[in-house]
Amino acid sequence: MKINKFVMPELIFGNGSINLVGESCARLGARKLFIATDPGVLASDWFEQVTASCKNAKLPYVIFADITTNPKDYEVDKGVYQYLQEECDAVVGVGGGSAIDVAKAVAVLATNGGSIQDYEGVDKIKMPLPPQVMVATTAGSGSEVSQFSIIIDSEKKKKLTIISKSLIPDIAIVDPQTLMTKSPHLTATTGLDVLTHAIESFVSIAATPLTDVQAISAIRLVAQNLRPSVASRMNKEAKAKMAMASVQAGLAFSNAILGAVHAMSHAIGGRFLLPHGDVNAILLPYVMEFNYLACPEKFLQIAELFGEESSRRSTIDSGLRAIEYVKKLSADIGAPRRLSEMGLSESDAPIVGQVAIEDACMITNPRDITAADVERLFKLAL
Amino acid sequence: MKINKFVMPELIFGNGSINLVGESCARLGARKLFIATDPGVLASDWFEQVTASCKNAKLPYVIFADITTNPKDYEVDKGVYQYLQEECDAVVGVGGGSAIDVAKAVAVLATNGGSIQDYEGVDKIKMPLPPQVMVATTAGSGSEVSQFSIIIDSEKKKKLTIISKSLIPDIAIVDPQTLMTKSPHLTATTGLDVLTHAIESFVSIAATPLTDVQAISAIRLVAQNLRPSVASRMNKEAKAKMAMASVQAGLAFSNAILGAVHAMSHAIGGRFLLPHGDVNAILLPYVMEFNYLACPEKFLQIAELFGEESSRRSTIDSGLRAIEYVKKLSADIGAPRRLSEMGLSESDAPIVGQVAIEDACMITNPRDITAADVERLFKLAL
Repeated sequence: MKINKFVMPELIFGNGSINLVGESCARLGARKLFIATDPGVLASDWFEQVTASCKNAKLPYVIFADITTNPKDYEVDKGVYQYLQEECDAVVGVGGGSAIDVAKAVAVLATNGGSIQDYEGVDKIKMPLPPQVMVATTAGSGSEVSQFSIIIDSEKKKKLTIISKSLIPDIAIVDPQTLMTKSPHLTATTGLDVLTHAIESFVSIAATPLTDVQAISAIRLVAQNLRPSVASRMNKEAKAKMAMASVQAGLAFSNAILGAVHAMSHAIGGRFLLPHGDVNAILLPYVMEFNYLACPEKFLQIAELFGEESSRRSTIDSGLRAIEYVKKLSADIGAPRRLSEMGLSESDAPIVGQVAIEDACMITNPRDITAADVERLFKLAL
Repeated sequence: MKINKFVMPELIFGNGSINLVGESCARLGARKLFIATDPGVLASDWFEQVTASCKNAKLPYVIFADITTNPKDYEVDKGVYQYLQEECDAVVGVGGGSAIDVAKAVAVLATNGGSIQDYEGVDKIKMPLPPQVMVATTAGSGSEVSQFSIIIDSEKKKKLTIISKSLIPDIAIVDPQTLMTKSPHLTATTGLDVLTHAIESFVSIAATPLTDVQAISAIRLVAQNLRPSVASRMNKEAKAKMAMASVQAGLAFSNAILGAVHAMSHAIGGRFLLPHGDVNAILLPYVMEFNYLACPEKFLQIAELFGEESSRRSTIDSGLRAIEYVKKLSADIGAPRRLSEMGLSESDAPIVGQVAIEDACMITNPRDITAADVERLFKLAL
């Protein structure tokens, strides 16, 4: 029996929980907040609730919103400069994975110095970080509970995967009300990102009973709630359940890590600056077909969670049904299906193979995989 | 939708994890350790691994083993005196609920002063506690992951229920190898304590989707592993699964709190100094029968987890099957069945009713309950 480890932040989940940002920061001893967010969130009708809660807690703050999808190293540098200039002592991220990952990266550089490249890989952060409160608003990234931050090295056109327990926020706040303004496309692709987190961590070689319970619950919730969540912007119940699925999938992958979908999607997203959720959505069924050989029993369980199996015919048939189900779900909610739709072509395969195979997420993929395998999967997904 | 909160320590689980006590303390910045344990654990053949790991981490320590079952306020006072005298700056608890609860209480008084009575109830602890590393060795209490500490007020003959987020340890270590030396009786009663935690938190009015996944997994693991775990001291797999069940049930009740079984068992255990696991084991089916009315659907789910239901006949029948199952399990593993076996009699009912109704655990019981109801349940269980 291997030794299992499991870590997570304090979690506050529910409608109205964004009103607790200020008091959460105060509880951690913060005096001045650095709030990282993106322009879309800043313009939302609920963002004011976040700043009002800070005012109520008598906490001054600065807002940093120069953050793009696939956030860049120079955005982090700009944020750190502001953090230090303004003498902040705590970090708040409000948004999807991009805003939260920048907030984490700012926290790293604020107390550890250097450039974000210095912290690529596992456990490279030495000094304690300032208090971190993260507010998730997309039901996708899981970054609010994870030990990951993904930042683009703009010169090398490459995603830096930074993994460290220090990156687990002190407090994660998830308020499903913030999901009501998401577009159907974003709801679909971030929802499939949740499913990718859950499935990759469930079949990961680092999965444990503690990560499995989270992954299993997330897979079931996605199967039951992603379609209605895409279909109706106002379906509060489905949105809330997708938010919970995102948290649980985040807890699973933060502790069991991921696999080839994420390794490839980091390589592709870093090079071509494509949206993470879209790329994952396309790759997931192809990687499932490849990985299937390594753990047919787990694929059988996935099929059962999808509601595709209760009579337990042969494990092989059942496992394959899980893959068919993902394809159908993806089609139903109008997610992109092929990498060529995103402007990619065969000539991109070698660089993706080369970069993906080095990604930290590849280590826990259940089936042994080579750069040539990655190239083949890439071409299949074109 | 109410706001759900979930908090837990960093968790290290697996055979050999007790060798990580020293490095875990070092990671938290500890310089000198106060190790609370009980005489039985101190005499075990594996205790030396704990102290060896501290020596390897170059951490001096003192050992405090003046701890009894149902630990007393004066034992805490004696521990604090030693902690301060020896200039310790971190607390380690090694054992079952008693040793861990004393370690937590020592941590409280070390930085907050006063007497342990001052902290009875919810959220009474103001100052941060020293680093806490807890090592669970009974697969029962769940105290290593919980925000609870239960200490006897020796003058009032009453259990003080202390609940605070500060009591959640920094790191919880659970090593199933430490379970091999438990007697069949202790394995049975602590195992039923785990089941009680899981069921009470599952039907608690404070249950959330995050506590439910833990409670559900714990109930299933107990149903599958408690019998074989009692039957054979050397059944490593069953012991490991019971240890995981204990952790998961601990996570569930730490965040969803408990109910009438624990409120009554605190009242009885505090007054008559009886073993917690034994009293819970006796009370559980009676309280289930009482609570059943409040949430028949949850009882149906419990029956399904026990493997008693798959065809979904009427909810009522199925829920009652869950209660029959608990009685049968209890009989199979030779747990005590009646309070009269423990020396209690009808004349004890009024004081139990009066004290139990004031216990913090009663607040989350799913069915409204009066002192008269408690008295009636007590008499039924005699």
